[in-house]
Amino acid sequence: MSENTKIPYKIYLSENEIPTKWYNVRSDMKNKPAPLLNPGTGQPMGFEDLRPVFCDELIKQELDNDTAYFDIPQEIVDFYKMYRPSPLVRAYCLEKALDTPAKIYYKFEGNNTSGSHKLNSAIAQAYYAKKQGLRGITTETGAGQWGTALSMASAYFGLDLKVFMVKVSYEQKPFRREVMRTYGASVTPSPSMDTNIGRKINAEHPGTTGSLGCAISEAVEVATTNEGYRYVLGSVLNQVLLHQSIIGLETKAALDKYGIVPDMIIGCAGGGSNLGGLIGPFMGEKLRGEKDYRIIAVEPASCPSFTRGKYAYDFCDTGMVCPLAKMYTLGSNFIPSANHAGGLRYHGMSPVLSQLYADGYMEAVAVEQTSVFEAATQFARTEGILPAPESSHAIRVAIDEALKCKETGEEKTIVFGLTGTGYFDLVAYQKYNDGEMTDYIPTDEDLAKSLDSLPKIG
Amino acid sequence: MSENTKIPYKIYLSENEIPTKWYNVRSDMKNKPAPLLNPGTGQPMGFEDLRPVFCDELIKQELDNDTAYFDIPQEIVDFYKMYRPSPLVRAYCLEKALDTPAKIYYKFEGNNTSGSHKLNSAIAQAYYAKKQGLRGITTETGAGQWGTALSMASAYFGLDLKVFMVKVSYEQKPFRREVMRTYGASVTPSPSMDTNIGRKINAEHPGTTGSLGCAISEAVEVATTNEGYRYVLGSVLNQVLLHQSIIGLETKAALDKYGIVPDMIIGCAGGGSNLGGLIGPFMGEKLRGEKDYRIIAVEPASCPSFTRGKYAYDFCDTGMVCPLAKMYTLGSNFIPSANHAGGLRYHGMSPVLSQLYADGYMEAVAVEQTSVFEAATQFARTEGILPAPESSHAIRVAIDEALKCKETGEEKTIVFGLTGTGYFDLVAYQKYNDGEMTDYIPTDEDLAKSLDSLPKIG
Repeated sequence: MSENTKIPYKIYLSENEIPTKWYNVRSDMKNKPAPLLNPGTGQPMGFEDLRPVFCDELIKQELDNDTAYFDIPQEIVDFYKMYRPSPLVRAYCLEKALDTPAKIYYKFEGNNTSGSHKLNSAIAQAYYAKKQGLRGITTETGAGQWGTALSMASAYFGLDLKVFMVKVSYEQKPFRREVMRTYGASVTPSPSMDTNIGRKINAEHPGTTGSLGCAISEAVEVATTNEGYRYVLGSVLNQVLLHQSIIGLETKAALDKYGIVPDMIIGCAGGGSNLGGLIGPFMGEKLRGEKDYRIIAVEPASCPSFTRGKYAYDFCDTGMVCPLAKMYTLGSNFIPSANHAGGLRYHGMSPVLSQLYADGYMEAVAVEQTSVFEAATQFARTEGILPAPESSHAIRVAIDEALKCKETGEEKTIVFGLTGTGYFDLVAYQKYNDGEMTDYIPTDEDLAKSLDSLPKIG
Repeated sequence: MSENTKIPYKIYLSENEIPTKWYNVRSDMKNKPAPLLNPGTGQPMGFEDLRPVFCDELIKQELDNDTAYFDIPQEIVDFYKMYRPSPLVRAYCLEKALDTPAKIYYKFEGNNTSGSHKLNSAIAQAYYAKKQGLRGITTETGAGQWGTALSMASAYFGLDLKVFMVKVSYEQKPFRREVMRTYGASVTPSPSMDTNIGRKINAEHPGTTGSLGCAISEAVEVATTNEGYRYVLGSVLNQVLLHQSIIGLETKAALDKYGIVPDMIIGCAGGGSNLGGLIGPFMGEKLRGEKDYRIIAVEPASCPSFTRGKYAYDFCDTGMVCPLAKMYTLGSNFIPSANHAGGLRYHGMSPVLSQLYADGYMEAVAVEQTSVFEAATQFARTEGILPAPESSHAIRVAIDEALKCKETGEEKTIVFGLTGTGYFDLVAYQKYNDGEMTDYIPTDEDLAKSLDSLPKIG
């Protein structure tokens, strides 16, 4: 227990210890992630192909598989200082409640108004858009986590932001919408009457409440048809994992400060933005053969792209207008069952993480949501923080691993990513509190059906 | 500008710099706050009089006007470590946006799931209840900020918590209710059918949506009629200011670390819990004649107890069952007009702060809510954090003072309390975003009417 007295509850780095470079895990991968393909020609997409949609500097980051470190521009570091470094917390109270010899740490990314790690990439993408002299950017959002982060970043750089928000969320989850508006973003329910694709969908499906795929299509249309606008995306892409590496770099710096070497690193996985960022530098050591860690992706059993998907080229959006990516996928028309709460509902997975998983560098576990909310509640009551449903997937597995240590007596060191807070997810918590939350695991037939939509390429 | 490079965005104390004693500002007051009076007899209430309602140790703290410092029990310090020290932030981005030579700092108390400073006293009150061997505690809550904090604290100590939540909030603001339930509290809409007073009010006013006064009465009834329960309160009381002194002590320690001496300290004032805590040690220096600071209380123009109230004995609750306190008050049946958003709606004010204001040690300003939300929005866009409406009263005056410095060229140092976040106040933000927020200043006739209810005592 003498170690316990040395390690504080929260390890904060000082501001001048905030990393000044992002780490690009692709540089250490022998098998690079497969390139994006043009959905029309099936050919890899290069810089010029992507320029109408994305910002120039971000495309360079997207395509660069070799550069190990990218300097973080000073303007972004300055913004990071407003909410970073984020704390690495020793979960003393949770350990005590579990009566485990395991040592549990979590990297908490929720201490900012966007409520999650999404801000790390939002500010970078807004910065490069501003630097390119653009007037504004467009994006889509579901429940609004990414949209909120981007609205904060856009306000900071005085950039116009047009968010297409899935109509059912716009109407039923008005709070994040109002956060975005407070930061000056225009928020349009999708499908709207402002775009060709929106008008078409509204005509074909009167009264539709929208989908993420449709919102993406609208955002891309506005970006490509308006002078001085580009489209930005908050997950899946290589550039996003690059920006999110700040999470892992800070985690590693904090652990190194106290000579702590984790046995396993656990993160929730939707599109892969948080997981890819958290594990980045640890995976680098593993790829270079310097260290070994268990690295565990946790996904919902209701949207199990790693554990039950296929590693293949697929559309990134349900509208099938975006480039094709090679990834673990459930098929672009897969939609999690209606009882699924929270995020982690994307049909595919980051191409980087997909390649690493295919090559055996990481494990994946699927967990059911009632057990996730049970873990969330236990965590909230012991550690104080009300976690996001997404983050609670990682909590579930961290607790399970700590309980295994209790049985074996092993003092393993567990690090997991607490990506965000659940303040805007209380409808789901209410369902759990009322005993009305259910689980649904897609059948093999369900998955066979959605996988049937895979394009015949690659 | 060389100073700017030295002072970080956020001054974090280390965990072993968390204060281990609370400071009792009453010890330095020549004119002590007036004692609580028994509403029946008009006599000062002593230890034995208060025992049926409050925890023993808390009564001692309540009545002790002499002890300067109280040791913070280790169990409370350990809990504080989960979310404290809270950062003192240099508002570089706001300063730049305002183009002011003023230096602005804010002490941010919102980085915990309760979303405010309320947790500082909640954990102390829960601790003493547990230590006394009680089974549980009862309280009332309006929108739920205090109830949330207390539910976190009660979960930590395994204490039963019964919250009476004003019925209209219970139904229309379900999110904080669900946070409380997630932490294991029972939340009952008030007036309920569980208490005599609740049944009486329901019978007399069928369909009533409740009031804070009624919820207090129910909570007190349950505490006094159930073996092993006591009632706790989150503001106004002397003991609460004592616990909240942690805010001011940390603020002072952080400023001292960099040799910063503030010219003015600004805080919002409802019942006085945050303001009293923030200014405590600074006021102590002022009372002892060691330093001089401008200390400014900011209240809503729609609930102006300092600026337009009367300094007199009054009931603490609208139900008129609680002790009488001498304070600046608008009368216990004063209710802010329906367009008033957020907290700071209490009719009275901490007796400690009331005495200090009466003695000329602090100033008070009343501001209108549209100007408050304007300041909140400017702050959010520049500093990132979406502030609580309550905290935004302090932001308004901090901005106004910084703009005065811009005119005069003075480089004043402004410190204000950012008590919490606005994540559960988005209905109010929506009203402001939609241009539908209005102001209302009570007329002299309004106030004369509610002041007419003052008891004829003291």
